Amino acid sequence: MTARSVNTQNDIPTLDSLVDALRALPGVGPKSAQRMAFHLMQYNRGGAERLGHALLQATATIQHCEHCHTFTEETICATCRSPLRDPAQLCVVETPADQLMIEQSGTYSGLYFVLMGRLSPLDGIGPKEIGLDKLIQRATNGDVEEVILATNFTHEGDATAHYIGQILRARGLRVSRIARGVPAGGELEYTDAGTIAHALLDRREV
Amino acid sequence: MTARSVNTQNDIPTLDSLVDALRALPGVGPKSAQRMAFHLMQYNRGGAERLGHALLQATATIQHCEHCHTFTEETICATCRSPLRDPAQLCVVETPADQLMIEQSGTYSGLYFVLMGRLSPLDGIGPKEIGLDKLIQRATNGDVEEVILATNFTHEGDATAHYIGQILRARGLRVSRIARGVPAGGELEYTDAGTIAHALLDRREV
Repeated sequence: MTARSVNTQNDIPTLDSLVDALRALPGVGPKSAQRMAFHLMQYNRGGAERLGHALLQATATIQHCEHCHTFTEETICATCRSPLRDPAQLCVVETPADQLMIEQSGTYSGLYFVLMGRLSPLDGIGPKEIGLDKLIQRATNGDVEEVILATNFTHEGDATAHYIGQILRARGLRVSRIARGVPAGGELEYTDAGTIAHALLDRREV
Repeated sequence: MTARSVNTQNDIPTLDSLVDALRALPGVGPKSAQRMAFHLMQYNRGGAERLGHALLQATATIQHCEHCHTFTEETICATCRSPLRDPAQLCVVETPADQLMIEQSGTYSGLYFVLMGRLSPLDGIGPKEIGLDKLIQRATNGDVEEVILATNFTHEGDATAHYIGQILRARGLRVSRIARGVPAGGELEYTDAGTIAHALLDRREV
């Protein structure tokens, strides 16, 4: 068993390089990499070739938006360039996927700042890695009146929101955090006590 | 939830192409593909570029050995070309990884035939896909005296061995199957009854 999980050398240099290179993918160890390489070479060479080109094209063209830090092919992303967005609101999210979810909710028309991560000192992700300087600069540009913190409600997301919130409040900005509560369609009987506690604390007059 | 798992369009063409292309990898759905693409673009562009080149190089150079059907960069693989291998024995395995394991056992010096799969009618993998014609041609070339079936002891591997065994025996070849039994280091108390039954049936005089 041990021998197999360690030795995945096939003595075919290009195949061994491919197995090695596949390990750049998150969560892919030596055995999955070997399985993926075999699968591609045996059943999906067209897909392998397309993936190869897509990777080279993406590394060559994708950069970070100078304003909001999200991925874009241009200097400034389409959202930041749009004259329809309200520059008085700045929503801080962890990833482009989170930004996409907020866009899909159809309730927000302000601008974004994408941290491209969250504070996680154990993984070496500190204020610099999430672009805090850029965020401060952006939030204090004179246009922004309110910063909405929409990081995840995980420990790290909460800590990130708390940290950013403190710094921006100290600079006189209005800072809010999206509400925790019972999800749409949720039944109280099946909702955890922590969520109900937050739903009560964050209650609003109707 | 549903919206998120369906919509992974980022409106950045090269990023969306990369997410699509990553789905060629086995077991990678739209959400893992998105996560992989973000990870590569954010934390490992060097790895992404290396993977791109490795994929293109591999699809361009890796082919099947004309004799044993395994992956190789040449027409005939190194094992088949070796004058040290005994051409009287032909070991049939499912994958190059299985061949590697047998090589590592250090007990076999014959040649191989790699099926590159197993019979699996439901997945559309029949005798043609595992190169049965080529195997018959190879096994009846006059050199081969014994064919050792070393497919896996799964339902499909067993069925494949049974099928190939019948066909080759009908052509007058000696056909054997590797032994099922208690693994090295295994204790009977913790071995399943089916394995013990086979260990008893396949017992050998000492």
